[in-house]
Amino acid sequence: MQAPLAGGPSTPELTAAVSGAGAFGFVAAGYKTPDAVRDELRALRSMTPEPFGVNVFVPGSAPDPAAYEAYLEGLRAEAEAHGVQLGEPRFEDDAWDAKLALLEADRVAAVSFTFGCPASEVVGRLRAAGSEVWVTVTDVAEAQEAADAGADALVVQGVEAGGHRGSFVDGDGAGDYGLLALLQLVRARVDLPLVASGGIATGGAVAAVLCAGARAAQIGTAFLRTREAGTAPAHRDAVASRAPTRLTRAFTGRQARGIVNRFLREHSAEAPTAYPNVHHATAPLRAAGRKAGDADVLNLWAGQTHELAPDVPAAELVATLAAGAAESLDAARLALSRRADA
Amino acid sequence: MQAPLAGGPSTPELTAAVSGAGAFGFVAAGYKTPDAVRDELRALRSMTPEPFGVNVFVPGSAPDPAAYEAYLEGLRAEAEAHGVQLGEPRFEDDAWDAKLALLEADRVAAVSFTFGCPASEVVGRLRAAGSEVWVTVTDVAEAQEAADAGADALVVQGVEAGGHRGSFVDGDGAGDYGLLALLQLVRARVDLPLVASGGIATGGAVAAVLCAGARAAQIGTAFLRTREAGTAPAHRDAVASRAPTRLTRAFTGRQARGIVNRFLREHSAEAPTAYPNVHHATAPLRAAGRKAGDADVLNLWAGQTHELAPDVPAAELVATLAAGAAESLDAARLALSRRADA
Repeated sequence: MQAPLAGGPSTPELTAAVSGAGAFGFVAAGYKTPDAVRDELRALRSMTPEPFGVNVFVPGSAPDPAAYEAYLEGLRAEAEAHGVQLGEPRFEDDAWDAKLALLEADRVAAVSFTFGCPASEVVGRLRAAGSEVWVTVTDVAEAQEAADAGADALVVQGVEAGGHRGSFVDGDGAGDYGLLALLQLVRARVDLPLVASGGIATGGAVAAVLCAGARAAQIGTAFLRTREAGTAPAHRDAVASRAPTRLTRAFTGRQARGIVNRFLREHSAEAPTAYPNVHHATAPLRAAGRKAGDADVLNLWAGQTHELAPDVPAAELVATLAAGAAESLDAARLALSRRADA
Repeated sequence: MQAPLAGGPSTPELTAAVSGAGAFGFVAAGYKTPDAVRDELRALRSMTPEPFGVNVFVPGSAPDPAAYEAYLEGLRAEAEAHGVQLGEPRFEDDAWDAKLALLEADRVAAVSFTFGCPASEVVGRLRAAGSEVWVTVTDVAEAQEAADAGADALVVQGVEAGGHRGSFVDGDGAGDYGLLALLQLVRARVDLPLVASGGIATGGAVAAVLCAGARAAQIGTAFLRTREAGTAPAHRDAVASRAPTRLTRAFTGRQARGIVNRFLREHSAEAPTAYPNVHHATAPLRAAGRKAGDADVLNLWAGQTHELAPDVPAAELVATLAAGAAESLDAARLALSRRADA
């Protein structure tokens, strides 16, 4: 299963290639207008008859400007040096109502949510329209809340994952569960199908999460260098490198994992919890960096295993992962039997 | 495989029960005198003919007192409130030379190292004595260094693990790899047997790490409530709870994962990198807490899946994990075949 990759890498071509290869692709509705999402669904359906999902951001609450003003003041010199002005640090809800209305009218196989749990009434409307509702969770309390709201499945996101943490509330670190630990904890307490996400880059890891109780593996970073992905060239190069990653609020005002670059190093310590206000403020700076190919001001979202992401067609990656998963399971079973016989 | 659990939980009874059940037990030599280690090896051999390993701490370099004086000053009121004085914040090497000499003379099946990589000369001496040498690693650079030093196997520790991070240098967070991510990265770059460690509490997770490239799973926290473990009662109760864990330097001056309690909450932000000096300074306070059953000043080391640790004999846990691993592999293989047929 391909993770929604909001902010550029996700394209209809990628989703179609993944779904066409027998896996399950996702459209990232985050940051897009409802019209752009509608166009993307139309484009995708012209490319593949296979089912796919759409990922939607759940709006939070507006932060107090006092929380981010000093931080943005500290970024002004950086913006000037790149010949841009910071964007307006506005709060908005990513067109929540309009996107829900669109998805109620224009049924897709699954709607997944990130950054929160939709109210049970919202879950009910989408289910009535014929979609499964999945909720991204990063700890057991979130998993239980999503189950109580009527979710059909949970996307269990480990701290290894690239891009934004899907936490309901921008957290302080106590909830930074590794994927394997989180799968065991959620599996023990919630009886819903689980989709594992975070740092899965090999067939062996796909097999691993199936063993730990997941129904499927969702893979994001490993698709960033595939031919069909819309990943910026500087981002592609960074993904192929062995550079470390960190969680940071520096780019958007919400914890996200990116490859360590100058901007992340210099601004993470001061960055506040203030999403999406900081996201909008830094957008012109990041756009300038993308245009100039300057990897030092880009948000280089990537999971911890990014260096394993291959430069291949997406369908080839899907096939390699599936074959590798089967091989890993067979090899592990054989090793365990030999141990028992010894 | 049972992880060495330095500081109380590890007992000869636990190691013997694990090795007797067909798994591989470890003696924690850390914090003990060479004489105490020798006595423990003797006691253990009287209980089981099975092989076992010994874990040794690799000494670091002495921190500048300026790094920890203010921190300890801030702990004095806490010590007084518990009717004790802080211990001397001394630096020492945990009797490194004497422990190596003991293990050269008194061969065990495997010697594992934590907090650093022994010099290749040390590795050579232990191998010449007939022991395998294992090194605990938390990132790919450490894995390569250990391979270059001649290690026979690597204990790959994910950030989920309870107790001290095994990092060669007390880190800043960029190396906080989830276990599943780290296994994939190390497997891709180093050709040595890997032992997976961190948050493994179920048979499904044992199966998972085997699929992701490990030869074996090393389990610590899940043994903390077994009958044979020497875990303090207040620590046992905390392990059975659903309280969150965090990484902290508050107790020892080195990153370690413990269940969040008052001491951890109040002192983590100020705690410096200064091991073992801070460890020795806080020892009387922790001993007082242990004696009084006061879980709020204890170092409640535990991995992220601690709530899954069962109150059973150690041999029963070993059998449950082995059976669960086989079942998980079979179920995952069946699910994958059905998917392929669909």
